[in-house]
Amino acid sequence: MSSLHVIIPAGGAGTRLWPLSRAGRPKFLIDLTGSGRTLIQQTWDRMAELAGPDRVHVVTGIAHADAVCAQLPQLRHVIAEPDPRDSMPAIGLATAIIAREDPDAVVGSFAADQTVADDAAFTQAVTEAVAAANAGYVCTIGVRPSEPSTAYGYIDAGEPLSVDGAPRALAVRRFVEKPDARTAQQYLDAGSYSWNAGMFVARASVLLDHLARLQPELHAGLALIAQAWGGPNQDAVLGQVWPSLPKVAIDHAIAEPVSVEGGLAVVPAAFGWSDVGDFAIASGSTADSTWIDADGLVFGDAPIHVAVVGLHDVVVVRTPDAVLITTREHAQDVKSVVAALKESGRTDLT
Amino acid sequence: MSSLHVIIPAGGAGTRLWPLSRAGRPKFLIDLTGSGRTLIQQTWDRMAELAGPDRVHVVTGIAHADAVCAQLPQLRHVIAEPDPRDSMPAIGLATAIIAREDPDAVVGSFAADQTVADDAAFTQAVTEAVAAANAGYVCTIGVRPSEPSTAYGYIDAGEPLSVDGAPRALAVRRFVEKPDARTAQQYLDAGSYSWNAGMFVARASVLLDHLARLQPELHAGLALIAQAWGGPNQDAVLGQVWPSLPKVAIDHAIAEPVSVEGGLAVVPAAFGWSDVGDFAIASGSTADSTWIDADGLVFGDAPIHVAVVGLHDVVVVRTPDAVLITTREHAQDVKSVVAALKESGRTDLT
Repeated sequence: MSSLHVIIPAGGAGTRLWPLSRAGRPKFLIDLTGSGRTLIQQTWDRMAELAGPDRVHVVTGIAHADAVCAQLPQLRHVIAEPDPRDSMPAIGLATAIIAREDPDAVVGSFAADQTVADDAAFTQAVTEAVAAANAGYVCTIGVRPSEPSTAYGYIDAGEPLSVDGAPRALAVRRFVEKPDARTAQQYLDAGSYSWNAGMFVARASVLLDHLARLQPELHAGLALIAQAWGGPNQDAVLGQVWPSLPKVAIDHAIAEPVSVEGGLAVVPAAFGWSDVGDFAIASGSTADSTWIDADGLVFGDAPIHVAVVGLHDVVVVRTPDAVLITTREHAQDVKSVVAALKESGRTDLT
Repeated sequence: MSSLHVIIPAGGAGTRLWPLSRAGRPKFLIDLTGSGRTLIQQTWDRMAELAGPDRVHVVTGIAHADAVCAQLPQLRHVIAEPDPRDSMPAIGLATAIIAREDPDAVVGSFAADQTVADDAAFTQAVTEAVAAANAGYVCTIGVRPSEPSTAYGYIDAGEPLSVDGAPRALAVRRFVEKPDARTAQQYLDAGSYSWNAGMFVARASVLLDHLARLQPELHAGLALIAQAWGGPNQDAVLGQVWPSLPKVAIDHAIAEPVSVEGGLAVVPAAFGWSDVGDFAIASGSTADSTWIDADGLVFGDAPIHVAVVGLHDVVVVRTPDAVLITTREHAQDVKSVVAALKESGRTDLT
């Protein structure tokens, strides 16, 4: 994968992981799996191994750039967004900067807050996606669904594309938004659907050509910034142009329209993927806790002993200033706590 | 009630109120009702009003004497036990000390960790008990049961005693230990049973005579200490004699045997009594907490925001180093947490 450059968009608050995740300490900066490495560190380990540490770009909010650099001492390329404008400007800017140095680059975007259990299977999927990208496709890596989840968008795959080096690459029929439970079950039963994990691989030139055609204003703005990148006017141009860029996700800006044109490929794969989206998925422990006629898991490493009596399947999250108590079943509803706290002006806790 | 001297035994850990109550911070030193006054302060307020502040004696463990004095600045008489030897030595020593100064004293023992809602009804009950004491009885104040509780001992009452000034005073048939649920229901249905709240009122001379007869060794030891009390050898004698005294409860030492002899009276009464024994009884709040599809109460004033999602009838107790999560239904089982922590050597938390 000598041509691959990796882009890691590091955004998103992770409100379903409150009180561990906060506005000032987003999900990707936290060790949510008990591995000793935060999610962005795990992503770095995986992607720097694949592409080489010098070929990893992280795009993150300006408030988190220092923390990202502290967690990833080998990282050389950080793009600090003045404000969040969704995934297309972030991935597009990194692509434009990479293309200026390496016009033949293949870029791949991989979110900072996902985990992969089977590295070999993941590497194989990325290898095929790079092959499909070199054949001119925008190629997404689809995650084989393990359940009828309503938490993810889905990708419906069609005919094999017969790309050299990408035997599993299929044409994308369409992208669909997060479904309701009944529709999710139909997708699972159909067998042709993958979860959209936001992993897109393409030649930089292909991606930028699509962008010039489909989002000309955004393309022009990114070109201006990329041109100034690394020079004395970098920050001034970024500060002036960035706030004028449209807020748009790569799914809507490129993936969906290009899929209609037949330019999207998908490599469906299974590699123990997780977006560690809530406490039902994250890895807790029973360390420093006491359970009497009770069971569940504790998250967070605040030095607060947790004792549970007479409650089952409990999730307890301890931090120095807030404790969350819920069940695995209600893990998705934790975001309502953050909404309620914001509503009541408790910005100290969100 | 010019003859009444009040004895407040302040002992007991309150393990069902962990983590608020600890070995170093027993139940009576805590504000468990949200009133702004700790349980011993509420007891002081009630009893000092009744007997006068100079006629209140507190008997407590040496480790808690300073805290008791700090909470009760008007308290003049504190007896610090070198080690806990159950209620009879504590009440007996206070009685012997009081009798030395006031041979005609009536003494009444009232635990430091109970609450009373209806002060007028309580005062009336004590007034009748003092009348019965002046007639020569050891008189207990029985609490009219509001439910078939298995948490208390019961007192079975018989015939009226026709004591002047104590129209409700009845002969005690027998004291019974904490019953099982079925027996408790039978006691409630019978109508003649009261809860034993450990309130005993008697002439000091009557109590000491019973003690001399039934527990001669204990009586002799207490007499030695009382003789030295207030003098230069007080602490030396206390330190030498106290550890040799038998550990025995006033129920077993005096109340039960004297009831068999017909010397026990009971004034059954209702005055909104509570022993604040567990978190199902104590008063929590919903301050500084967020409830999403959930309800319950929070205890403790540690500055830790509590959020509960998808759980009902929850009890959350927050302290700086430990959080308890249970339900009202399981409130009695909290003592098992303390047992488990002791078992695993976590003396820092018990």
